[in-house]
Amino acid sequence: MNVYASAYGITKFRKDNTSIYSLALESAIDLIKRFDIDKDSIDGVIIATSSIEPYIASIVSEMLGIKPKIAHKLEQMCSSGSSAIAAAYSYIYSGICKNVLVIGVDKHDTIGKRLDWDNSRGEFKHPAHWAALYAKMHMKAFNTTEEQLALVTVKNRDNAINNKYAYFQERITIDEVLNSKIVVDPIKLYECSYPCDGSAAILLSNKPSENSIKVTGIGEQSLGASISSITDFTSIESTRLAAKEAYDMAGIDASKVDIAEVHDAFTICEILAYEDLGFTERGKGGKFIENIDKIGIKINTRGGLLGTGHPVGATGIAQAAEIIRQLMLGYRIGLIHNMAAAGTTSNVIIMENEI
Amino acid sequence: MNVYASAYGITKFRKDNTSIYSLALESAIDLIKRFDIDKDSIDGVIIATSSIEPYIASIVSEMLGIKPKIAHKLEQMCSSGSSAIAAAYSYIYSGICKNVLVIGVDKHDTIGKRLDWDNSRGEFKHPAHWAALYAKMHMKAFNTTEEQLALVTVKNRDNAINNKYAYFQERITIDEVLNSKIVVDPIKLYECSYPCDGSAAILLSNKPSENSIKVTGIGEQSLGASISSITDFTSIESTRLAAKEAYDMAGIDASKVDIAEVHDAFTICEILAYEDLGFTERGKGGKFIENIDKIGIKINTRGGLLGTGHPVGATGIAQAAEIIRQLMLGYRIGLIHNMAAAGTTSNVIIMENEI
Repeated sequence: MNVYASAYGITKFRKDNTSIYSLALESAIDLIKRFDIDKDSIDGVIIATSSIEPYIASIVSEMLGIKPKIAHKLEQMCSSGSSAIAAAYSYIYSGICKNVLVIGVDKHDTIGKRLDWDNSRGEFKHPAHWAALYAKMHMKAFNTTEEQLALVTVKNRDNAINNKYAYFQERITIDEVLNSKIVVDPIKLYECSYPCDGSAAILLSNKPSENSIKVTGIGEQSLGASISSITDFTSIESTRLAAKEAYDMAGIDASKVDIAEVHDAFTICEILAYEDLGFTERGKGGKFIENIDKIGIKINTRGGLLGTGHPVGATGIAQAAEIIRQLMLGYRIGLIHNMAAAGTTSNVIIMENEI
Repeated sequence: MNVYASAYGITKFRKDNTSIYSLALESAIDLIKRFDIDKDSIDGVIIATSSIEPYIASIVSEMLGIKPKIAHKLEQMCSSGSSAIAAAYSYIYSGICKNVLVIGVDKHDTIGKRLDWDNSRGEFKHPAHWAALYAKMHMKAFNTTEEQLALVTVKNRDNAINNKYAYFQERITIDEVLNSKIVVDPIKLYECSYPCDGSAAILLSNKPSENSIKVTGIGEQSLGASISSITDFTSIESTRLAAKEAYDMAGIDASKVDIAEVHDAFTICEILAYEDLGFTERGKGGKFIENIDKIGIKINTRGGLLGTGHPVGATGIAQAAEIIRQLMLGYRIGLIHNMAAAGTTSNVIIMENEI
């Protein structure tokens, strides 16, 4: 059984008063119109979100005028989007569904932004605290510099300028990043992704269509929920394990990936992703960003979370929408990397343009 | 690919101060101990719940001391439990997981009890209002009586006495039901299921084990979210469609079902289920309950929602746990029927003891 991504839709990432329902509808309608999808063929609707509203999958289905068999909400904090892709893949594989619409959506004030349950974080519950821990430990272990971290923001903000759906539309210099307010040393304000409103949608199908993209690898790993379950802050173990699963399933290694969307919730996350996804050796993430223009692989072409904003449940689907778009434009192998709650969960998805 | 149910666990249904996390843990530990399950073999954890807490699947996994690949929350109001079974089935079918633990859990005060979004209900948002509509219309169309409705409570409360995990443990007479407070005419207090705290767990696996039960049919259908999407209140259309899917997949018809758990959120729901699942003809549900002792099929042997209580996300899993238990004891074909939001969504699962 093969599973194909055949369409995507997206909304402008922003902050306004649009309801979560209308926001979800917006990306779904964009998908349907952009790819001329027959609504009646959709027999599954999964909504990836950390919003608390019950029955949202049936509500949005009713608004869309469709009557799916499978309909439900799926939540796993920042990984909700890519977890929902694995679910949709499985519903198609099992034959329960033929065409599953996966919508990611969240508002900026979602409770999914921080894990208040985790008392092992003490008073330090803002995600910048765990990002700072990773950054400090990586700098100490591998001489990674503040300038290297800042380069991630500069690159991703540059990429966001070419993405009209991105929250940020202004170029930023390395000095502006370095001189922005210290949130938690060494993480500065412009090294943090921005919680905003947004939605993205993709369609997975059991049959190929013109231009459709094959889903070839899925890897997920949850290693706990509290930050105390992490023993080594120089690497994201869950990402390494999820990547191995996904590469093995696709039958490829990291060197084959042409384009990737990685989870840059903070600058250090992208540096870690380079290493944990195998794009470079352990400890070489800082050098990798310095030389990224000379390296073949494209990373976070839509602007990443740092450039587009981070509407929690929408992020994994927006990443997938970008990879599908880029593969439809000609790239061959794409990778999506999503993670949640200080990297205690990671998801890696591989898609291939087989034409 | 075959999928097997190999274990179940349950908590006492009650009202106390146990946290949602501890409650989920309780049924999972019951399952692990009852069936001597190797915790390390569990590579998927889905939590069916309408609770709003984020990241609950990874939190409970950490509490259990397991590190699953797939971990997420799934919400579809009262159908969350059986929707999660379809998800687990699919993860196993796709090969992503080998052993998926599905935990249903909710507290009595969950926001999943009523759909405040549905403004087509006007001021009448309590679920008893839609139940009363179905009851009135069924009585008018088919001469169904208040006594017949009341018999559902009498039967299910009787069954609950033999289930130590049930909320209600007292026998009730038909007169007590008929003389209980009218909630929404003609639905009386003792015809309403009781929101309470509870959890249930089942394990689905890719390999059979001693005593394991095969999942042979899965049917789901969502037809909308608002009550205005329902045009005929004498039958639950989503149940009829979900049942057809499940029977077709299992290659059986209703006459083959030996034992069923049906969604008796209100007495009228069970009467409708008899008809919509095909156990009797349209309009004959009232006669069916009058003669149920003479009919081969066993219905709601654990006490149903009316006898055990209704912890929203736990209900579908508790129903499945009962069917698995009964099939392990010797019944051959079992059916689980779950529905949500005035019957706008229904789920039907068929399991078989192949020994």
